[in-house]
Amino acid sequence: MKGYGQFCPVAKAAEIAAERWTPLVLRELLAGSVHFGDLRRGVPLMSPSLLSRRLKDLEQAGVVERRDGDDGRPEYHLTEAGHELRPLVEHLGQWGQRWARKRIE
Amino acid sequence: MKGYGQFCPVAKAAEIAAERWTPLVLRELLAGSVHFGDLRRGVPLMSPSLLSRRLKDLEQAGVVERRDGDDGRPEYHLTEAGHELRPLVEHLGQWGQRWARKRIE
Repeated sequence: MKGYGQFCPVAKAAEIAAERWTPLVLRELLAGSVHFGDLRRGVPLMSPSLLSRRLKDLEQAGVVERRDGDDGRPEYHLTEAGHELRPLVEHLGQWGQRWARKRIE
Repeated sequence: MKGYGQFCPVAKAAEIAAERWTPLVLRELLAGSVHFGDLRRGVPLMSPSLLSRRLKDLEQAGVVERRDGDDGRPEYHLTEAGHELRPLVEHLGQWGQRWARKRIE
């Protein structure tokens, strides 16, 4: 995780939640995906190694908890801190719908 | 601006508002800074050339309007779309206060 060198809570939160690709990973987790493969399908242009790194970053930041499911496959679950990022992702979506241009880049 | 290749409004908004350093630049603009020098002082570890690029990105995205002030110096003002990012930056700050660890990175 690349920091901003500021104690400001906006900066500390941005380091975690606004890192490149992370809003999209959070979107998938908030939509209920728990397995790596499902997360990947939600963000197909993100490389698997980067997705893996971001999940580790989120785990380290206390946003995601990794645990083994009943079938032995690893699952990624949002913690309480993670669920509290829902308004952020929802606001991004609302803002994007209202203001972002329709081009794909 | 680096895109995510998705039409999803979360992705389109993240391309603009969650780009690296941008939440901090928005924080300074929302706090009322309009001159380049004041913006720089608010984000001292950001290089001037990157700040300049981010301001151009925000201008292109319709979030910031650049115009000359009465004294002839360029000023950067949030547009309506820019002001509507306030809840996003405020939520980041609240979340950071509640959840982000106190280390500087």
